Amino acid sequence: MYLSTKNQRLETQNWFETLRDQICSSFEKLEQNYEGPKQSMLPGKFRRKKWHREGGGGGEMSIMEGRLFEKVGVNISTVMGELSPEFSKQIPGAEDNPKFWASGISLVAHMWSPHVPAVHMNTRHIATTRSWFGGGADLTPMVINTEDKELFHKAFQSACNKHDDTYYARFKEWCDDYFYLKHRKEPRGVGGIFYDQLANNFEADFNFTKEVGSTFNSVYPTIVKRHMNKKWTKKERQAQLVKRGRYVEFNLLYDRGTLFGLQTGGNVEAILMSLPPSVSWPSSL
Amino acid sequence: MYLSTKNQRLETQNWFETLRDQICSSFEKLEQNYEGPKQSMLPGKFRRKKWHREGGGGGEMSIMEGRLFEKVGVNISTVMGELSPEFSKQIPGAEDNPKFWASGISLVAHMWSPHVPAVHMNTRHIATTRSWFGGGADLTPMVINTEDKELFHKAFQSACNKHDDTYYARFKEWCDDYFYLKHRKEPRGVGGIFYDQLANNFEADFNFTKEVGSTFNSVYPTIVKRHMNKKWTKKERQAQLVKRGRYVEFNLLYDRGTLFGLQTGGNVEAILMSLPPSVSWPSSL
Repeated sequence: MYLSTKNQRLETQNWFETLRDQICSSFEKLEQNYEGPKQSMLPGKFRRKKWHREGGGGGEMSIMEGRLFEKVGVNISTVMGELSPEFSKQIPGAEDNPKFWASGISLVAHMWSPHVPAVHMNTRHIATTRSWFGGGADLTPMVINTEDKELFHKAFQSACNKHDDTYYARFKEWCDDYFYLKHRKEPRGVGGIFYDQLANNFEADFNFTKEVGSTFNSVYPTIVKRHMNKKWTKKERQAQLVKRGRYVEFNLLYDRGTLFGLQTGGNVEAILMSLPPSVSWPSSL
Repeated sequence: MYLSTKNQRLETQNWFETLRDQICSSFEKLEQNYEGPKQSMLPGKFRRKKWHREGGGGGEMSIMEGRLFEKVGVNISTVMGELSPEFSKQIPGAEDNPKFWASGISLVAHMWSPHVPAVHMNTRHIATTRSWFGGGADLTPMVINTEDKELFHKAFQSACNKHDDTYYARFKEWCDDYFYLKHRKEPRGVGGIFYDQLANNFEADFNFTKEVGSTFNSVYPTIVKRHMNKKWTKKERQAQLVKRGRYVEFNLLYDRGTLFGLQTGGNVEAILMSLPPSVSWPSSL
Protein backbone atom coordinates (compact mmCIF):
# COMPACT_ATOMS: atom_id res chain seq x y z
CA MET A 1 0.00 0.00 0.00
CA TYR A 2 1.27 3.49 -0.79
CA LEU A 3 0.13 7.00 -1.58
CA SER A 4 1.55 8.50 -4.76
CA THR A 5 3.08 11.97 -4.59
CA LYS A 6 1.92 14.93 -6.64
CA ASN A 7 4.89 14.49 -8.96
CA GLN A 8 4.23 10.81 -9.41
CA ARG A 9 0.63 11.52 -10.33
CA LEU A 10 1.76 14.08 -12.87
CA GLU A 11 4.09 11.46 -14.32
CA THR A 12 1.18 9.03 -14.85
CA GLN A 13 -0.94 11.77 -16.38
CA ASN A 14 1.87 12.63 -18.78
CA TRP A 15 2.28 8.99 -19.69
CA PHE A 16 -1.39 8.54 -20.52
CA GLU A 17 -1.11 11.59 -22.78
CA THR A 18 2.06 10.23 -24.42
CA LEU A 19 0.46 6.84 -24.94
CA ARG A 20 -2.58 8.52 -26.47
CA ASP A 21 -0.32 10.33 -28.94
CA GLN A 22 1.58 7.14 -29.78
CA ILE A 23 -1.60 5.17 -30.39
CA CYS A 24 -3.25 7.91 -32.46
CA SER A 25 -0.12 8.11 -34.54
CA SER A 26 0.13 4.36 -35.13
CA PHE A 27 -3.60 4.11 -35.95
CA GLU A 28 -3.35 6.99 -38.44
CA LYS A 29 -0.41 5.21 -40.06
CA LEU A 30 -2.57 2.09 -40.47
CA GLU A 31 -5.24 4.26 -42.12
CA GLN A 32 -2.64 5.58 -44.55
CA ASN A 33 -1.18 2.19 -45.42
CA TYR A 34 -4.58 0.58 -45.88
CA GLU A 35 -5.23 -1.03 -49.27
CA GLY A 36 -8.49 -2.85 -48.57
CA PRO A 37 -12.01 -2.67 -50.01
CA LYS A 38 -12.57 0.92 -48.84
CA GLN A 39 -9.29 2.33 -50.12
CA SER A 40 -11.04 4.83 -52.37
CA MET A 41 -11.99 6.73 -49.19
CA LEU A 42 -9.53 9.22 -47.72
CA PRO A 43 -7.45 7.96 -44.78
CA GLY A 44 -8.96 8.97 -41.43
CA LYS A 45 -7.47 11.52 -39.05
CA PHE A 46 -8.21 11.88 -35.34
CA ARG A 47 -10.23 14.88 -34.20
CA ARG A 48 -9.92 16.06 -30.61
CA LYS A 49 -12.27 17.68 -28.14
CA LYS A 50 -11.51 18.78 -24.60
CA TRP A 51 -14.09 18.70 -21.83
CA HIS A 52 -14.18 20.03 -18.29
CA ARG A 53 -15.69 18.38 -15.28
CA GLU A 54 -17.77 20.25 -12.73
CA GLY A 55 -16.04 19.48 -9.48
CA GLY A 56 -12.54 19.35 -10.91
CA GLY A 57 -10.44 18.30 -13.87
CA GLY A 58 -11.52 17.12 -17.28
CA GLY A 59 -10.31 15.24 -20.28
CA GLU A 60 -9.82 15.05 -23.97
CA MET A 61 -11.56 12.80 -26.48
CA SER A 62 -9.85 11.77 -29.70
CA ILE A 63 -11.99 10.16 -32.29
CA MET A 64 -11.40 8.91 -35.80
CA GLU A 65 -13.93 7.68 -38.36
CA GLY A 66 -11.78 6.38 -41.15
CA ARG A 67 -11.71 3.80 -43.93
CA LEU A 68 -10.18 1.02 -41.82
CA PHE A 69 -11.31 2.18 -38.38
CA GLU A 70 -15.08 2.63 -38.66
CA LYS A 71 -15.00 4.38 -35.28
CA VAL A 72 -12.22 4.54 -32.73
CA GLY A 73 -12.28 6.67 -29.60
CA VAL A 74 -9.31 7.33 -27.35
CA ASN A 75 -10.14 9.23 -24.16
CA ILE A 76 -7.73 10.58 -21.62
CA SER A 77 -8.95 12.23 -18.46
CA THR A 78 -7.65 13.50 -15.15
CA VAL A 79 -10.34 14.24 -12.60
CA MET A 80 -10.27 15.07 -8.92
CA GLY A 81 -12.51 16.31 -6.14
CA GLU A 82 -14.76 14.65 -3.60
CA LEU A 83 -16.74 11.46 -4.05
CA SER A 84 -20.42 11.47 -3.08
CA PRO A 85 -21.10 9.79 0.31
CA GLU A 86 -22.64 6.87 -1.60
CA PHE A 87 -19.58 6.25 -3.76
CA SER A 88 -17.07 6.94 -0.96
CA LYS A 89 -18.17 3.68 0.63
CA GLN A 90 -17.44 1.73 -2.54
CA ILE A 91 -13.99 3.12 -3.36
CA PRO A 92 -10.96 1.73 -1.48
CA GLY A 93 -9.37 4.25 0.88
CA ALA A 94 -12.24 6.72 0.53
CA GLU A 95 -14.40 5.31 3.33
CA ASP A 96 -13.52 8.12 5.75
CA ASN A 97 -12.17 10.72 3.34
CA PRO A 98 -13.99 11.45 0.08
CA LYS A 99 -11.07 13.12 -1.71
CA PHE A 100 -9.91 11.41 -4.88
CA TRP A 101 -7.67 11.90 -7.90
CA ALA A 102 -7.84 9.74 -11.02
CA SER A 103 -6.14 9.77 -14.37
CA GLY A 104 -6.38 7.30 -17.22
CA ILE A 105 -6.71 6.39 -20.84
CA SER A 106 -9.54 4.43 -22.40
CA LEU A 107 -9.81 3.17 -25.96
CA VAL A 108 -12.34 1.24 -28.03
CA ALA A 109 -11.94 0.52 -31.75
CA HIS A 110 -14.67 -0.79 -34.07
CA MET A 111 -13.42 -1.73 -37.53
CA TRP A 112 -15.13 -1.74 -40.93
CA SER A 113 -13.78 -5.18 -41.72
CA PRO A 114 -15.39 -8.18 -40.02
CA HIS A 115 -11.95 -9.83 -40.30
CA VAL A 116 -10.32 -7.30 -37.99
CA PRO A 117 -11.20 -7.73 -34.29
CA ALA A 118 -12.66 -4.90 -32.23
CA VAL A 119 -10.49 -4.01 -29.25
CA HIS A 120 -10.63 -2.29 -25.89
CA MET A 121 -7.76 -0.99 -23.76
CA ASN A 122 -7.85 1.04 -20.59
CA THR A 123 -5.31 1.88 -17.89
CA ARG A 124 -5.62 4.22 -14.93
CA HIS A 125 -3.97 5.52 -11.76
CA ILE A 126 -6.23 6.34 -8.83
CA ALA A 127 -5.48 7.93 -5.48
CA THR A 128 -7.68 8.35 -2.42
CA THR A 129 -5.97 7.96 0.98
CA ARG A 130 -4.00 5.31 -0.91
CA SER A 131 -3.06 4.73 -4.54
CA TRP A 132 -3.29 1.98 -7.09
CA PHE A 133 -3.23 1.15 -10.79
CA GLY A 134 -5.73 -0.74 -12.89
CA GLY A 135 -6.42 -1.54 -16.49
CA GLY A 136 -6.27 -4.16 -19.19
CA ALA A 137 -6.94 -4.94 -22.82
CA ASP A 138 -9.23 -7.42 -24.49
CA LEU A 139 -9.94 -8.50 -28.04
CA THR A 140 -13.37 -9.02 -29.62
CA PRO A 141 -13.08 -10.76 -32.98
CA MET A 142 -16.21 -11.24 -35.06
CA VAL A 143 -14.95 -14.63 -36.17
CA ILE A 144 -12.43 -16.27 -33.87
CA ASN A 145 -9.00 -16.59 -35.45
CA THR A 146 -6.75 -18.81 -33.36
CA GLU A 147 -3.53 -17.14 -34.45
CA ASP A 148 -4.81 -13.65 -33.56
CA LYS A 149 -5.97 -14.89 -30.21
CA GLU A 150 -2.58 -16.48 -29.51
CA LEU A 151 -0.66 -13.43 -30.66
CA PHE A 152 -2.71 -11.20 -28.37
CA HIS A 153 -2.45 -13.47 -25.34
CA LYS A 154 1.25 -14.20 -25.82
CA ALA A 155 2.05 -10.51 -26.08
CA PHE A 156 0.37 -9.81 -22.75
CA GLN A 157 1.76 -12.95 -21.19
CA SER A 158 5.26 -11.84 -22.02
CA ALA A 159 4.48 -8.30 -20.80
CA CYS A 160 3.18 -9.71 -17.51
CA ASN A 161 6.09 -12.10 -17.06
CA LYS A 162 8.61 -9.26 -17.16
CA HIS A 163 7.01 -7.95 -13.97
CA ASP A 164 5.57 -10.83 -11.97
CA ASP A 165 5.24 -14.54 -12.66
CA THR A 166 1.78 -14.66 -11.17
CA TYR A 167 0.26 -11.74 -13.10
CA TYR A 168 -0.68 -13.36 -16.37
CA ALA A 169 -2.70 -16.28 -15.01
CA ARG A 170 -4.53 -14.05 -12.53
CA PHE A 171 -5.17 -11.16 -14.90
CA LYS A 172 -6.25 -13.39 -17.77
CA GLU A 173 -8.81 -15.13 -15.57
CA TRP A 174 -10.01 -11.80 -14.19
CA CYS A 175 -10.57 -10.64 -17.77
CA ASP A 176 -12.52 -13.77 -18.70
CA ASP A 177 -14.70 -13.37 -15.60
CA TYR A 178 -15.30 -9.70 -16.17
CA PHE A 179 -16.12 -9.59 -19.89
CA TYR A 180 -18.90 -12.15 -19.70
CA LEU A 181 -22.55 -11.70 -20.70
CA LYS A 182 -24.39 -13.62 -17.99
CA HIS A 183 -27.82 -13.36 -19.63
CA ARG A 184 -26.50 -14.96 -22.82
CA LYS A 185 -23.94 -17.23 -21.14
CA GLU A 186 -21.42 -15.87 -23.67
CA PRO A 187 -17.97 -14.29 -23.30
CA ARG A 188 -17.77 -10.83 -24.92
CA GLY A 189 -14.67 -11.74 -26.89
CA VAL A 190 -11.54 -13.88 -26.55
CA GLY A 191 -10.22 -12.07 -23.48
CA GLY A 192 -6.88 -10.55 -22.69
CA ILE A 193 -5.94 -9.20 -19.26
CA PHE A 194 -7.73 -7.20 -16.59
CA TYR A 195 -6.27 -5.93 -13.31
CA ASP A 196 -7.35 -3.55 -10.59
CA GLN A 197 -6.12 -2.23 -7.25
CA LEU A 198 -2.56 -3.10 -8.11
CA ALA A 199 -0.68 -1.56 -5.17
CA ASN A 200 2.76 -3.09 -4.68
CA ASN A 201 4.84 0.05 -5.06
CA PHE A 202 4.45 3.03 -7.33
CA GLU A 203 7.43 2.43 -9.61
CA ALA A 204 6.71 -1.25 -10.21
CA ASP A 205 3.00 -0.74 -10.80
CA PHE A 206 3.55 2.24 -13.06
CA ASN A 207 6.16 0.37 -15.09
CA PHE A 208 3.80 -2.54 -15.52
CA THR A 209 0.99 -0.21 -16.57
CA LYS A 210 3.25 1.45 -19.13
CA GLU A 211 4.17 -2.00 -20.42
CA VAL A 212 0.49 -2.86 -20.89
CA GLY A 213 -0.06 0.29 -22.94
CA SER A 214 3.02 -0.22 -25.11
CA THR A 215 2.23 -3.89 -25.61
CA PHE A 216 -1.22 -2.96 -26.80
CA ASN A 217 0.18 -0.43 -29.26
CA SER A 218 2.43 -3.11 -30.68
CA VAL A 219 0.25 -6.22 -30.80
CA TYR A 220 -3.03 -4.70 -31.97
CA PRO A 221 -1.56 -3.02 -35.09
CA THR A 222 0.13 -6.36 -35.86
CA ILE A 223 -3.23 -8.12 -35.78
CA VAL A 224 -4.88 -5.35 -37.82
CA LYS A 225 -2.23 -5.63 -40.54
CA ARG A 226 -2.79 -9.38 -40.84
CA HIS A 227 -6.35 -8.87 -42.08
CA MET A 228 -6.99 -5.27 -43.02
CA ASN A 229 -6.76 -5.61 -46.79
CA LYS A 230 -8.99 -8.69 -47.07
CA LYS A 231 -12.39 -8.51 -48.73
CA TRP A 232 -15.52 -9.45 -46.84
CA THR A 233 -19.01 -10.58 -47.74
CA LYS A 234 -22.34 -8.99 -46.80
CA LYS A 235 -23.02 -11.99 -44.61
CA GLU A 236 -19.76 -11.48 -42.70
CA ARG A 237 -20.55 -7.79 -42.25
CA GLN A 238 -24.05 -8.61 -40.97
CA ALA A 239 -22.57 -11.10 -38.47
CA GLN A 240 -20.25 -8.33 -37.30
CA LEU A 241 -23.19 -5.95 -36.71
CA VAL A 242 -24.93 -8.63 -34.64
CA LYS A 243 -21.80 -9.37 -32.63
CA ARG A 244 -21.55 -5.65 -31.91
CA GLY A 245 -24.98 -5.88 -30.29
CA ARG A 246 -23.35 -8.04 -27.61
CA TYR A 247 -20.79 -5.30 -27.09
CA VAL A 248 -23.60 -2.80 -26.48
CA GLU A 249 -25.41 -5.20 -24.16
CA PHE A 250 -22.24 -5.72 -22.14
CA ASN A 251 -21.39 -2.04 -21.85
CA LEU A 252 -24.88 -0.91 -20.86
CA LEU A 253 -25.81 -3.86 -18.65
CA TYR A 254 -22.55 -4.76 -16.92
CA ASP A 255 -19.59 -2.46 -17.48
CA ARG A 256 -18.75 -0.88 -14.14
CA GLY A 257 -16.94 2.09 -15.66
CA THR A 258 -19.88 2.92 -17.92
CA LEU A 259 -22.51 2.58 -15.20
CA PHE A 260 -20.40 4.42 -12.61
CA GLY A 261 -19.74 7.23 -15.08
CA LEU A 262 -23.39 7.61 -16.08
CA GLN A 263 -24.61 7.46 -12.48
CA THR A 264 -22.11 10.07 -11.29
CA GLY A 265 -22.91 12.60 -14.01
CA GLY A 266 -19.80 11.89 -16.07
CA ASN A 267 -19.33 13.12 -19.65
CA VAL A 268 -21.94 11.09 -21.57
CA GLU A 269 -20.27 11.73 -24.91
CA ALA A 270 -16.92 10.40 -23.67
CA ILE A 271 -18.41 7.45 -21.77
CA LEU A 272 -20.59 6.26 -24.64
CA MET A 273 -17.88 6.80 -27.24
CA SER A 274 -17.32 3.05 -26.80
CA LEU A 275 -20.62 2.20 -28.50
CA PRO A 276 -20.32 0.88 -32.06
CA PRO A 277 -21.09 3.12 -35.04
CA SER A 278 -23.63 0.65 -36.41
CA VAL A 279 -25.28 -2.34 -34.80
CA SER A 280 -27.99 -4.83 -35.61
CA TRP A 281 -30.44 -6.84 -33.52
CA PRO A 282 -32.27 -8.84 -36.15
CA SER A 283 -34.98 -11.32 -35.28
CA SER A 284 -33.60 -14.75 -34.58
CA LEU A 285 -36.90 -16.49 -35.32
CA MET B 1 -57.33 -4.91 -2.96
CA TYR B 2 -58.50 -8.29 -4.26
CA LEU B 3 -57.27 -11.69 -5.33
CA SER B 4 -58.36 -12.81 -8.78
CA THR B 5 -59.90 -16.27 -9.16
CA LYS B 6 -58.55 -18.97 -11.42
CA ASN B 7 -61.30 -18.25 -13.94
CA GLN B 8 -60.62 -14.55 -13.90
CA ARG B 9 -56.94 -15.16 -14.56
CA LEU B 10 -57.82 -17.42 -17.45
CA GLU B 11 -60.01 -14.62 -18.81
CA THR B 12 -57.09 -12.19 -18.78
CA GLN B 13 -54.82 -14.73 -20.41
CA ASN B 14 -57.40 -15.31 -23.15
CA TRP B 15 -57.75 -11.58 -23.66
CA PHE B 16 -54.01 -11.05 -24.10
CA GLU B 17 -54.07 -13.81 -26.70
CA THR B 18 -57.07 -12.27 -28.47
CA LEU B 19 -55.45 -8.84 -28.43
CA ARG B 20 -52.27 -10.35 -29.88
CA ASP B 21 -54.28 -11.86 -32.73
CA GLN B 22 -56.12 -8.58 -33.36
CA ILE B 23 -52.89 -6.57 -33.44
CA CYS B 24 -51.04 -9.05 -35.66
CA SER B 25 -53.96 -9.00 -38.03
CA SER B 26 -54.16 -5.19 -38.20
CA PHE B 27 -50.39 -4.88 -38.65
CA GLU B 28 -50.39 -7.45 -41.46
CA LYS B 29 -53.17 -5.48 -43.12
CA LEU B 30 -51.01 -2.36 -42.97
CA GLU B 31 -48.19 -4.32 -44.61
CA GLN B 32 -50.54 -5.35 -47.40
CA ASN B 33 -51.91 -1.86 -48.00
CA TYR B 34 -48.50 -0.23 -47.96
CA GLU B 35 -47.54 1.76 -51.06
CA GLY B 36 -44.37 3.46 -49.85
CA PRO B 37 -40.73 3.42 -50.97
CA LYS B 38 -40.27 -0.29 -50.17
CA GLN B 39 -43.41 -1.51 -51.91
CA SER B 40 -41.43 -3.74 -54.26
CA MET B 41 -40.79 -5.99 -51.25
CA LEU B 42 -43.34 -8.63 -50.31
CA PRO B 43 -45.70 -7.70 -47.47
CA GLY B 44 -44.53 -9.11 -44.13
CA LYS B 45 -46.21 -11.90 -42.20
CA PHE B 46 -45.82 -12.71 -38.51
CA ARG B 47 -43.88 -15.81 -37.55
CA ARG B 48 -44.53 -17.41 -34.16
CA LYS B 49 -42.41 -19.31 -31.69
CA LYS B 50 -43.50 -20.82 -28.39
CA TRP B 51 -41.20 -21.07 -25.41
CA HIS B 52 -41.42 -22.80 -22.04
CA ARG B 53 -40.20 -21.50 -18.74
CA GLU B 54 -38.35 -23.66 -16.27
CA GLY B 55 -40.38 -23.30 -13.12
CA GLY B 56 -43.74 -22.97 -14.83
CA GLY B 57 -45.56 -21.57 -17.82
CA GLY B 58 -44.16 -20.00 -20.96
CA GLY B 59 -45.11 -17.78 -23.81
CA GLU B 60 -45.25 -17.17 -27.49
CA MET B 61 -43.31 -14.65 -29.55
CA SER B 62 -44.72 -13.25 -32.77
CA ILE B 63 -42.34 -11.37 -34.95
CA MET B 64 -42.62 -9.71 -38.33
CA GLU B 65 -39.87 -8.22 -40.48
CA GLY B 66 -41.76 -6.58 -43.29
CA ARG B 67 -41.57 -3.71 -45.74
CA LEU B 68 -43.31 -1.17 -43.47
CA PHE B 69 -42.49 -2.73 -40.10
CA GLU B 70 -38.72 -3.18 -40.07
CA LYS B 71 -39.11 -5.30 -36.94
CA VAL B 72 -42.11 -5.74 -34.70
CA GLY B 73 -42.34 -8.20 -31.85
CA VAL B 74 -45.49 -9.12 -29.98
CA ASN B 75 -44.95 -11.37 -26.99
CA ILE B 76 -47.58 -13.00 -24.85
CA SER B 77 -46.65 -14.99 -21.79
CA THR B 78 -48.24 -16.65 -18.78
CA VAL B 79 -45.79 -17.68 -16.11
CA MET B 80 -46.19 -18.94 -12.56
CA GLY B 81 -44.21 -20.50 -9.74
CA GLU B 82 -42.23 -19.16 -6.84
CA LEU B 83 -40.21 -15.96 -6.73
CA SER B 84 -36.65 -16.10 -5.43
CA PRO B 85 -36.31 -14.83 -1.83
CA GLU B 86 -34.59 -11.73 -3.23
CA PHE B 87 -37.45 -10.82 -5.57
CA SER B 88 -40.20 -11.82 -3.13
CA LYS B 89 -39.28 -8.77 -1.08
CA GLN B 90 -39.72 -6.47 -4.05
CA ILE B 91 -43.05 -7.73 -5.34
CA PRO B 92 -46.25 -6.54 -3.61
CA GLY B 93 -48.05 -9.28 -1.73
CA ALA B 94 -45.15 -11.73 -2.07
CA GLU B 95 -43.26 -10.67 1.04
CA ASP B 96 -44.36 -13.73 3.02
CA ASN B 97 -45.46 -16.02 0.22
CA PRO B 98 -43.33 -16.38 -2.91
CA LYS B 99 -46.08 -17.82 -5.13
CA PHE B 100 -46.95 -15.76 -8.17
CA TRP B 101 -48.89 -15.89 -11.42
CA ALA B 102 -48.45 -13.38 -14.24
CA SER B 103 -49.83 -13.02 -17.72
CA GLY B 104 -49.34 -10.23 -20.22
CA ILE B 105 -48.68 -8.92 -23.67
CA SER B 106 -45.74 -6.80 -24.73
CA LEU B 107 -45.14 -5.14 -28.07
CA VAL B 108 -42.44 -3.00 -29.66
CA ALA B 109 -42.49 -1.85 -33.29
CA HIS B 110 -39.57 -0.30 -35.19
CA MET B 111 -40.48 1.04 -38.61
CA TRP B 112 -38.47 1.43 -41.81
CA SER B 113 -39.77 4.95 -42.32
CA PRO B 114 -38.34 7.71 -40.15
CA HIS B 115 -41.73 9.42 -40.55
CA VAL B 116 -43.57 6.64 -38.71
CA PRO B 117 -43.05 6.64 -34.92
CA ALA B 118 -41.78 3.59 -33.07
CA VAL B 119 -44.20 2.37 -30.44
CA HIS B 120 -44.36 0.28 -27.30
CA MET B 121 -47.41 -1.25 -25.61
CA ASN B 122 -47.61 -3.64 -22.71
CA THR B 123 -50.37 -4.78 -20.36
CA ARG B 124 -50.34 -7.44 -17.69
CA HIS B 125 -52.24 -9.07 -14.85
CA ILE B 126 -50.28 -10.25 -11.85
CA ALA B 127 -51.32 -12.21 -8.79
CA THR B 128 -49.42 -12.99 -5.60
CA THR B 129 -51.43 -12.98 -2.35
CA ARG B 130 -53.23 -10.12 -4.08
CA SER B 131 -53.83 -9.12 -7.70
CA TRP B 132 -53.39 -6.09 -9.87
CA PHE B 133 -53.10 -4.85 -13.45
CA GLY B 134 -50.44 -2.73 -15.08
CA GLY B 135 -49.38 -1.53 -18.49
CA GLY B 136 -49.34 1.39 -20.85
CA ALA B 137 -48.33 2.57 -24.28
CA ASP B 138 -45.91 5.22 -25.45
CA LEU B 139 -44.87 6.69 -28.77
CA THR B 140 -41.31 7.38 -29.95
CA PRO B 141 -41.29 9.50 -33.09
CA MET B 142 -38.00 10.18 -34.80
CA VAL B 143 -39.14 13.70 -35.63
CA ILE B 144 -41.89 15.07 -33.41
CA ASN B 145 -45.16 15.59 -35.25
CA THR B 146 -47.59 17.57 -33.13
CA GLU B 147 -50.69 16.05 -34.70
CA ASP B 148 -49.49 12.48 -34.12
CA LYS B 149 -48.66 13.32 -30.54
CA GLU B 150 -52.10 14.83 -29.97
CA LEU B 151 -53.88 11.94 -31.66
CA PHE B 152 -52.04 9.46 -29.46
CA HIS B 153 -52.60 11.37 -26.23
CA LYS B 154 -56.24 12.16 -26.96
CA ALA B 155 -56.99 8.53 -27.71
CA PHE B 156 -55.62 7.44 -24.34
CA GLN B 157 -57.17 10.39 -22.56
CA SER B 158 -60.57 9.41 -23.83
CA ALA B 159 -59.90 5.74 -22.98
CA CYS B 160 -58.91 6.75 -19.44
CA ASN B 161 -61.88 9.10 -18.98
CA LYS B 162 -64.35 6.29 -19.66
CA HIS B 163 -63.06 4.62 -16.50
CA ASP B 164 -61.83 7.24 -14.05
CA ASP B 165 -61.46 11.00 -14.27
CA THR B 166 -58.14 10.92 -12.45
CA TYR B 167 -56.44 8.24 -14.57
CA TYR B 168 -55.20 10.23 -17.53
CA ALA B 169 -53.34 12.97 -15.66
CA ARG B 170 -51.75 10.45 -13.29
CA PHE B 171 -50.86 7.85 -15.91
CA LYS B 172 -49.52 10.40 -18.38
CA GLU B 173 -47.19 11.86 -15.77
CA TRP B 174 -46.12 8.38 -14.68
CA CYS B 175 -45.22 7.62 -18.30
CA ASP B 176 -43.20 10.83 -18.67
CA ASP B 177 -41.32 10.07 -15.45
CA TYR B 178 -40.64 6.47 -16.38
CA PHE B 179 -39.49 6.80 -20.01
CA TYR B 180 -36.76 9.30 -19.26
CA LEU B 181 -33.02 8.95 -19.97
CA LYS B 182 -31.45 10.52 -16.90
CA HIS B 183 -27.89 10.44 -18.23
CA ARG B 184 -28.92 12.41 -21.34
CA LYS B 185 -31.63 14.48 -19.64
CA GLU B 186 -33.90 13.43 -22.52
CA PRO B 187 -37.35 11.84 -22.67
CA ARG B 188 -37.39 8.60 -24.68
CA GLY B 189 -40.28 9.77 -26.81
CA VAL B 190 -43.45 11.85 -26.52
CA GLY B 191 -45.04 9.73 -23.82
CA GLY B 192 -48.43 8.13 -23.52
CA ILE B 193 -49.68 6.40 -20.38
CA PHE B 194 -48.13 4.08 -17.80
CA TYR B 195 -49.88 2.46 -14.86
CA ASP B 196 -49.04 -0.21 -12.33
CA GLN B 197 -50.58 -1.91 -9.30
CA LEU B 198 -54.05 -0.93 -10.37
CA ALA B 199 -56.17 -2.78 -7.82
CA ASN B 200 -59.66 -1.31 -7.49
CA ASN B 201 -61.66 -4.36 -8.42
CA PHE B 202 -61.07 -7.08 -10.97
CA GLU B 203 -63.84 -6.19 -13.41
CA ALA B 204 -63.07 -2.46 -13.53
CA ASP B 205 -59.32 -2.93 -13.82
CA PHE B 206 -59.65 -5.63 -16.44
CA ASN B 207 -62.08 -3.52 -18.48
CA PHE B 208 -59.69 -0.59 -18.34
CA THR B 209 -56.78 -2.79 -19.39
CA LYS B 210 -58.80 -4.14 -22.32
CA GLU B 211 -59.62 -0.55 -23.29
CA VAL B 212 -55.91 0.33 -23.31
CA GLY B 213 -55.15 -2.56 -25.66
CA SER B 214 -58.02 -1.80 -28.03
CA THR B 215 -57.20 1.91 -28.02
CA PHE B 216 -53.65 1.10 -28.99
CA ASN B 217 -54.81 -1.12 -31.85
CA SER B 218 -56.93 1.72 -33.16
CA VAL B 219 -54.76 4.81 -32.70
CA TYR B 220 -51.38 3.41 -33.74
CA PRO B 221 -52.54 2.12 -37.15
CA THR B 222 -54.17 5.53 -37.69
CA ILE B 223 -50.83 7.25 -37.09
CA VAL B 224 -48.99 4.74 -39.27
CA LYS B 225 -51.38 5.35 -42.18
CA ARG B 226 -50.81 9.10 -41.99
CA HIS B 227 -47.15 8.72 -42.96
CA MET B 228 -46.40 5.24 -44.23
CA ASN B 229 -46.28 6.02 -47.94
CA LYS B 230 -44.04 9.09 -47.67
CA LYS B 231 -40.49 9.08 -49.00
CA TRP B 232 -37.56 9.76 -46.74
CA THR B 233 -34.02 10.98 -47.17
CA LYS B 234 -30.77 9.26 -46.13
CA LYS B 235 -30.32 11.99 -43.54
CA GLU B 236 -33.73 11.28 -42.01
CA ARG B 237 -32.98 7.57 -41.93
CA GLN B 238 -29.63 8.21 -40.24
CA ALA B 239 -31.33 10.42 -37.62
CA GLN B 240 -33.74 7.54 -36.99
CA LEU B 241 -30.87 5.08 -36.42
CA VAL B 242 -29.34 7.50 -33.91
CA LYS B 243 -32.65 8.03 -32.11
CA ARG B 244 -32.95 4.24 -31.86
CA GLY B 245 -29.69 4.26 -29.91
CA ARG B 246 -31.56 6.12 -27.17
CA TYR B 247 -34.14 3.34 -27.20
CA VAL B 248 -31.41 0.77 -26.63
CA GLU B 249 -29.83 2.86 -23.88
CA PHE B 250 -33.18 3.17 -22.12
CA ASN B 251 -34.03 -0.51 -22.34
CA LEU B 252 -30.64 -1.78 -21.16
CA LEU B 253 -29.92 0.90 -18.55
CA TYR B 254 -33.34 1.61 -17.04
CA ASP B 255 -36.22 -0.59 -18.13
CA ARG B 256 -37.36 -2.55 -15.09
CA GLY B 257 -39.01 -5.30 -17.10
CA THR B 258 -35.87 -5.88 -19.17
CA LEU B 259 -33.49 -5.87 -16.21
CA PHE B 260 -35.83 -7.99 -14.06
CA GLY B 261 -36.23 -10.49 -16.88
CA LEU B 262 -32.51 -10.78 -17.58
CA GLN B 263 -31.62 -11.04 -13.88
CA THR B 264 -34.20 -13.76 -13.25
CA GLY B 265 -33.16 -15.96 -16.14
CA GLY B 266 -36.08 -15.02 -18.39
CA ASN B 267 -36.20 -15.82 -22.10
CA VAL B 268 -33.44 -13.60 -23.54
CA GLU B 269 -34.79 -13.84 -27.06
CA ALA B 270 -38.24 -12.63 -25.99
CA ILE B 271 -36.95 -9.94 -23.63
CA LEU B 272 -34.53 -8.44 -26.13
CA MET B 273 -36.98 -8.65 -29.02
CA SER B 274 -37.60 -4.98 -28.21
CA LEU B 275 -34.15 -3.96 -29.49
CA PRO B 276 -34.13 -2.22 -32.87
CA PRO B 277 -33.06 -4.11 -36.02
CA SER B 278 -30.42 -1.51 -36.86
CA VAL B 279 -28.95 1.27 -34.75
CA SER B 280 -26.18 3.80 -35.01
CA TRP B 281 -23.96 5.54 -32.49
CA PRO B 282 -21.89 7.85 -34.68
CA SER B 283 -19.30 10.19 -33.30
CA SER B 284 -20.77 13.53 -32.35
CA LEU B 285 -17.42 15.34 -32.57
